[in-house]
Amino acid sequence: MNDFKFIESSQNSVIKQICKLQASSKERYENGQFVIEGLRICKDACENGIRFDKLIVSDEAFDKFYGGIEILAENSCECIKVTDPLFRKISDTKNPQGIAAVASMPDISTNNIDLKGRYIALENISDPANLGAVARTAEALGASGIILSADGCDPYSPKVLRASMGTLLRMPLIMLDDFSANIGKLGLKLFACVVDKDAQSIIDVRFQDGCAVIIGNEANGVTAETKKASDLLITIPMQGAAESLNAAAAAAISIWEMMKI
Amino acid sequence: MNDFKFIESSQNSVIKQICKLQASSKERYENGQFVIEGLRICKDACENGIRFDKLIVSDEAFDKFYGGIEILAENSCECIKVTDPLFRKISDTKNPQGIAAVASMPDISTNNIDLKGRYIALENISDPANLGAVARTAEALGASGIILSADGCDPYSPKVLRASMGTLLRMPLIMLDDFSANIGKLGLKLFACVVDKDAQSIIDVRFQDGCAVIIGNEANGVTAETKKASDLLITIPMQGAAESLNAAAAAAISIWEMMKI
Repeated sequence: MNDFKFIESSQNSVIKQICKLQASSKERYENGQFVIEGLRICKDACENGIRFDKLIVSDEAFDKFYGGIEILAENSCECIKVTDPLFRKISDTKNPQGIAAVASMPDISTNNIDLKGRYIALENISDPANLGAVARTAEALGASGIILSADGCDPYSPKVLRASMGTLLRMPLIMLDDFSANIGKLGLKLFACVVDKDAQSIIDVRFQDGCAVIIGNEANGVTAETKKASDLLITIPMQGAAESLNAAAAAAISIWEMMKI
Repeated sequence: MNDFKFIESSQNSVIKQICKLQASSKERYENGQFVIEGLRICKDACENGIRFDKLIVSDEAFDKFYGGIEILAENSCECIKVTDPLFRKISDTKNPQGIAAVASMPDISTNNIDLKGRYIALENISDPANLGAVARTAEALGASGIILSADGCDPYSPKVLRASMGTLLRMPLIMLDDFSANIGKLGLKLFACVVDKDAQSIIDVRFQDGCAVIIGNEANGVTAETKKASDLLITIPMQGAAESLNAAAAAAISIWEMMKI
């Protein structure tokens, strides 16, 4: 197996950098790196072509998961072993497994768009659990990928990565800096999902390849600018006293209708 | 307005009882009572015929929400004012609004079944956020009610009540003690939603009045006993590497298909 460098000081610069990547979205995007934790999600990342800059393993995990770690080490530029207490310091979870990797962000630019694909687009989704849930649904139902706005919650934050159970490392992601200005330039037919009785019922929409359904922010919905950039406003007909469907539920129904043949 | 009794000791028996109701499901069902918090959810409960045994208001909230509190007080057997620190002690939230009520549980027996209704049934759902989300979706899409198993998470726990945003106080609930033994006795046609390629695709199911779709536990799905009690096993066709849809997403798609005309 690769050589493992041993670190035991929390003042070590590598350790400090990992803590920064865990805590700060700005740090992640400036460096094009993020941290993933756990044997399974690290393996998943390997299998999906995500290279590791560093692999970090705790003393305890090194012995316990030796076979699994061997595969991860081959995918990593540098391998580091740390004491168990130090691993707990860099971990974002309460009971860490003792395996983490600093991974390089895959290409999340618009270069990745498949013009025959069917996408779910999330404008400024703010709840990590919602983003994770939508990603899982999108993958399970076979959507081509997820389009995100840079002002929404960060898909590479520890919380979102956990909520998505690795899905976000397996699915194509496209991140738009100025969502409403750029979503219309992708070359996809855009359906903005809104709460508006005058919008077209999603039941009557005929989805074809090369499209995206847009779900808006949890509190404010799709912005006026994005509605303008869309080809059609669509709605999920509702009843009862609930003000609106939760964003993840609206996305689930939208993806379902979009992918149904 | 009704007279408000003032309590400032955390050792007061009423305060102790409220804390117990907040913390323990057993306590809630033994007493047929639960605690709701916040002006809006309390108003919602009033409007849906839920009587209050006690209304509890903090010093600060009493002045701030005087008008709203007047309406709640009329719906309550007893009204209590407490100091702000004492309210924080009984509250389940970090930043309490200062208004809570001890409410009487509505009838959640099978007497409530509408034999022409369309229900979502949850067998042993364990995540409060999932139960809250499913309730919101069920209400928004017009389902007749929610059937729950007594071994799942408690719909009257503070967490679930918050996640459902009051929906669980507005919708008919039916709680089954031994789910798999009793679900078949309701007189509804039962569709168990499973992950099984041989089950009938939900796209091809023709739902009619007097039915329920059953969603299973997050980790284990619908139990073998409940599958046996069901009329048909149905499935949401999936693709990709995701192991399964999250329970709330599966419920959203199921309710959507069941309610679509």
